[in-house]
Amino acid sequence: MPFSSLTEECEGWETTARETHFHSAHLEVATEEVRTPARPDGRSWIVAHRKAAVIVAPLTADGRLVLIRQERIPIRSAIWEVPSGQIDDAAALDARAIEAVALRELQEETGYQLAPGAELLPLGHFFSSPGFTDERGYHFLARPVELSAAGQAHEESETILDCRAFTTEEISRMIRENEIRDANTLSICAKLVARGEFLLHI
Amino acid sequence: MPFSSLTEECEGWETTARETHFHSAHLEVATEEVRTPARPDGRSWIVAHRKAAVIVAPLTADGRLVLIRQERIPIRSAIWEVPSGQIDDAAALDARAIEAVALRELQEETGYQLAPGAELLPLGHFFSSPGFTDERGYHFLARPVELSAAGQAHEESETILDCRAFTTEEISRMIRENEIRDANTLSICAKLVARGEFLLHI
Repeated sequence: MPFSSLTEECEGWETTARETHFHSAHLEVATEEVRTPARPDGRSWIVAHRKAAVIVAPLTADGRLVLIRQERIPIRSAIWEVPSGQIDDAAALDARAIEAVALRELQEETGYQLAPGAELLPLGHFFSSPGFTDERGYHFLARPVELSAAGQAHEESETILDCRAFTTEEISRMIRENEIRDANTLSICAKLVARGEFLLHI
Repeated sequence: MPFSSLTEECEGWETTARETHFHSAHLEVATEEVRTPARPDGRSWIVAHRKAAVIVAPLTADGRLVLIRQERIPIRSAIWEVPSGQIDDAAALDARAIEAVALRELQEETGYQLAPGAELLPLGHFFSSPGFTDERGYHFLARPVELSAAGQAHEESETILDCRAFTTEEISRMIRENEIRDANTLSICAKLVARGEFLLHI
């Protein structure tokens, strides 16, 4: 997969050289020489390229947010977070196809699906750590969701331990007490609050 | 720097093997064999190790949030974000020393400093992308801040184009319109809202 094709070059940005140091199915590390609008002579930067991801905030009809509890190897911890998943070959997909990935991840990780007449609302994208990686996540609000007959169907590579729907008061407490502590969940909560879709009570 | 020492191993977690693929001053990539509470037989995972970071929300006396506009090479864009910086040898530092890094980054990147009698409030930590990296950021609220006589003093490796203080209405609009789109800023906004320190008006 050409990870580098994920990065669009806007006016004033140009990649003049590139040396790959490491390449796997999920991560590519390269030193890149890049001309920027503020540094037209160019500079060198080590970039970790990653597939893009979908991140879903599933809200139930009574306003609860559905989270999964998942083991995350890099941080040696299990944490509560919103469902998410990587997109294979995002550059080749249109908005509809990315929405389909979001709905599939929602179903697989939580066992929830859109209720009849419900909507999947795109909330834009975000960058997880733009100082070192081009990883981006596409945020979606799924509302209302309901438990599906099929239930969860985790991939073998995942270790999801639990799934629950939390009230806004619980989510707010979990954020204050650092129990919710991943960028996906905190970032989508900020977007929901800024749009008036979700309140974080004190 | 021993990146791997940043990861504490709690009960049920054990690293049994490790092969480094790439190592630089800011990034280490390794395949790790890890026993987890849910997978005691162990599994293999590629982990990108990064230094920890400080992330500061600087609030002025009239309730505005100070952001910088910075070129970020990995995403080929300049974005508005809260000041932040990496911590050298975080495992060796106590809370006081990490707070000193936060105050230094605030001063260097924005030219603002704590006003007399102001406080730097720790807001916990977060993980930028726990599916592939151990990178963590320590959040701080600096309130109130004021412009210092010394002004900004950027590091040569940074390209900060602008610095401004935004009202809550402006921040909320920038989040809704995807102008604010990095995990540091979105995550610290979620924490400020959950603590009642900052309101995101619709």
